Amino acid sequence: MQKTTLAEARRHFSRPERICWAVAACDGRRSICPLGWKMNTSGSPPMMAISVSPLRFTHDLIAESGQFVLAFPGDDLADATLLCGTRSGRDIEKFAAAHLTALPAEQVGAPLVAECIANLECRVAGRMTSGDHTIFVGEILGAWVNDRPRRLLCSVDAASGYDLVLEDKGYRFGVVRQ
Amino acid sequence: MQKTTLAEARRHFSRPERICWAVAACDGRRSICPLGWKMNTSGSPPMMAISVSPLRFTHDLIAESGQFVLAFPGDDLADATLLCGTRSGRDIEKFAAAHLTALPAEQVGAPLVAECIANLECRVAGRMTSGDHTIFVGEILGAWVNDRPRRLLCSVDAASGYDLVLEDKGYRFGVVRQ
Repeated sequence: MQKTTLAEARRHFSRPERICWAVAACDGRRSICPLGWKMNTSGSPPMMAISVSPLRFTHDLIAESGQFVLAFPGDDLADATLLCGTRSGRDIEKFAAAHLTALPAEQVGAPLVAECIANLECRVAGRMTSGDHTIFVGEILGAWVNDRPRRLLCSVDAASGYDLVLEDKGYRFGVVRQ
Repeated sequence: MQKTTLAEARRHFSRPERICWAVAACDGRRSICPLGWKMNTSGSPPMMAISVSPLRFTHDLIAESGQFVLAFPGDDLADATLLCGTRSGRDIEKFAAAHLTALPAEQVGAPLVAECIANLECRVAGRMTSGDHTIFVGEILGAWVNDRPRRLLCSVDAASGYDLVLEDKGYRFGVVRQ
């Protein structure tokens, strides 16, 4: 065991990272923030936690509305993930810019994303500051799946078990080979 | 988009789940709790968050010591992961039971695991209750990597991009093919 930098250590345990989108809406505005920093955090009631930078427009929409949708993109949404992750919802309407279809959810004001593999409706049940991010804990109130399931988009490394989908701007997206 | 159960929806977005071990020690006792419920949660300072059931012995050791090590097992540690995940540290000494080597860390009292791919020394910087689990936010104080890196152990599904390592007791462990 050798002491090393965190950046070097991360190369060994950070991939694959499944990707999800936090979707939020408030006062007629809405946005989408792709993120890899999420985890299950309760079985009963079912909850997931996400880490979102306060610099993100989506962060403010979640904080103000107390609600969000977690949407899981498939291999056809790598370009949309890149666009939503590298532009701000303060400047563009991401559903329009990424050619995405918003559908009404049942339990929350944030929209579902019709093109995603699955959508979870979440109510913020807790939040805390963690360094330069905020943890939002979402109680899962409803779940939706696409009629035409795709393969889940991940951040990947150079292993051969993936089909590489998109490599651009320092990101490398792929799916596990099936 | 069809409404469904969370269990059904999870089939589409829950794998692969990288596995890590939370390792903690207090008052001469120590334990290892394998978990998939973890995420990065801050870039600067670097932090990771984990979700641990209060029923776990490791939970109490983390809560009492305010420290833990996150260790990342490779494909040679599937049996050890299963053993550590299905037995309690109240009943067995897991390093001995799983034939693991504890090494002293530099910044925390919890030991490093010599056989793991990487180890992170973490100080608890925040905690909150999230349903039936506790979120511990750990500031990463040090990082270690193994001289002989292995492939990272994951919970996997039936995709062909994995090499299956162990399937037992409802768990399915594998590594991304390289």
